Amino acid sequence: MNKNEIESIIMKYMPEKDSFPPLSEAMCYSVQNGGKRLRPLMMLETCRLFSGDTSQAEPFAAAVEMIHSGSLVHDDLPCMDNDELRRGVLSTWKAFGEPTALMAGDALMAYAFETAARSLLMPHPERAARAMSVLADSAGTGGVCLGQTQDMQFTGKEPDGETLEQIYIKKTCALLQASMAIGALIGGADDEAVKIVDEAALHIGLAFQIRDDILDVTADEKSLGKPVGSDSKNNKTTFVTIYGLSGAQKAVFEHSALARALMLRLPGDKAFFLDLIEKLENRNN
Amino acid sequence: MNKNEIESIIMKYMPEKDSFPPLSEAMCYSVQNGGKRLRPLMMLETCRLFSGDTSQAEPFAAAVEMIHSGSLVHDDLPCMDNDELRRGVLSTWKAFGEPTALMAGDALMAYAFETAARSLLMPHPERAARAMSVLADSAGTGGVCLGQTQDMQFTGKEPDGETLEQIYIKKTCALLQASMAIGALIGGADDEAVKIVDEAALHIGLAFQIRDDILDVTADEKSLGKPVGSDSKNNKTTFVTIYGLSGAQKAVFEHSALARALMLRLPGDKAFFLDLIEKLENRNN
Repeated sequence: MNKNEIESIIMKYMPEKDSFPPLSEAMCYSVQNGGKRLRPLMMLETCRLFSGDTSQAEPFAAAVEMIHSGSLVHDDLPCMDNDELRRGVLSTWKAFGEPTALMAGDALMAYAFETAARSLLMPHPERAARAMSVLADSAGTGGVCLGQTQDMQFTGKEPDGETLEQIYIKKTCALLQASMAIGALIGGADDEAVKIVDEAALHIGLAFQIRDDILDVTADEKSLGKPVGSDSKNNKTTFVTIYGLSGAQKAVFEHSALARALMLRLPGDKAFFLDLIEKLENRNN
Repeated sequence: MNKNEIESIIMKYMPEKDSFPPLSEAMCYSVQNGGKRLRPLMMLETCRLFSGDTSQAEPFAAAVEMIHSGSLVHDDLPCMDNDELRRGVLSTWKAFGEPTALMAGDALMAYAFETAARSLLMPHPERAARAMSVLADSAGTGGVCLGQTQDMQFTGKEPDGETLEQIYIKKTCALLQASMAIGALIGGADDEAVKIVDEAALHIGLAFQIRDDILDVTADEKSLGKPVGSDSKNNKTTFVTIYGLSGAQKAVFEHSALARALMLRLPGDKAFFLDLIEKLENRNN
């Protein structure tokens, strides 16, 4: 599955841009300005591993991307990271003003659950019910919101490596873990397989986030598509400040290796994930 | 059912205050500082009208109050209404700082859906699935988020009476309508009854909001428990500025009468609702 296919699925579930401006405009603007679409991609590909019906996973795939986009909208707000640019264009609050951006983030979260709820009407409602709990937990107190709160708490302070890893697990890994776990659940995986998938996603997420720390130091702005050096500017402790560049990249390789080993224990054709893990550990943007 | 009973249900579903501070503290602070608890109260009492199993409605009752509380947390933020006080105590952002308040609002929304999802595991999952859609729509693009966005858009402008009513319907009525509709759905009401309930809640909500406009002019701060005259200070058009005090109170009575007539078409003992409608139309706080 490629990025274009994923984006057409996401957009199929979004409200029309002009349906209730400016809120619908701000919601669409935030979701359209997408990145790698890793979460929905990993969800649907995990569902495929278990020969699951991806059409029941599609509402969740769109939902997880709405939640991710909404969290970035709130993350960019002046009281958080105060970012005026996101992926080379104006951040949502800079384009639509703070009140509309705040509400667009909230509305994306609500719309995500409205979208995911469609899966409850499909052939395996009991799987969708479990997936709904997993999604909500990872979006909130078990993931994104907790991680962002801790991230703000430790800005300007110096968390040790273990604390930093715990923050990354909440801030970045939780939603990736939920994505793969939901793909597995909807695909009909048993509890043991869901656990393996969840752990693999944890290591993919850590490798991803630590590689991000490295790129913030080593990449050039043009290939990265965003300003470099922002961690140091924002006084953020990262894996690079704690372990150095080579120590951090070593951690990326280690987590990737662990993810690979876990994936090989799963059924189905793992080519997509093995390729993804390799791309992510060496990525330059 | 009284306010104490409702509050113990809500708190049963909330995370422990100390489980992941400061986020869990800010979430509990925001929910504990409650008002009339109208939404969960109306939901459970509607469920009773249809002789429904209120235990399956309880997760939704807690969820709707979490969503309501979370929306107030965001509404008080400096970029929205910039309120430092809520019901006589510091607003969440004033007590915990803006980043934690922003995340607490988000986390309450996510936690609401996590809580509501518990109802999917109970005897009537198909009712809970419909209720989930209704809740998400009213929290987001079909209600609160859209209403708040429109409310900000028209601040300092002069919406006509019809536009203002549409804003009130999204901002205030939608979540009340969802509350009663969910109570009816979980209670096993048929589509016709759900429609009547929804319409009754619309009129209760309009009467409530218009009475709020009146109290902002006529009440004294002590009995109201919040500053009076804030609408005029914030340059807000209200039903009072458009229709005058007596015109506004006439609208309160009219909507209350319509709500009463609709309620009488429903089964069960309507004493709670008839009493509530009367209390609300004459309330002084």
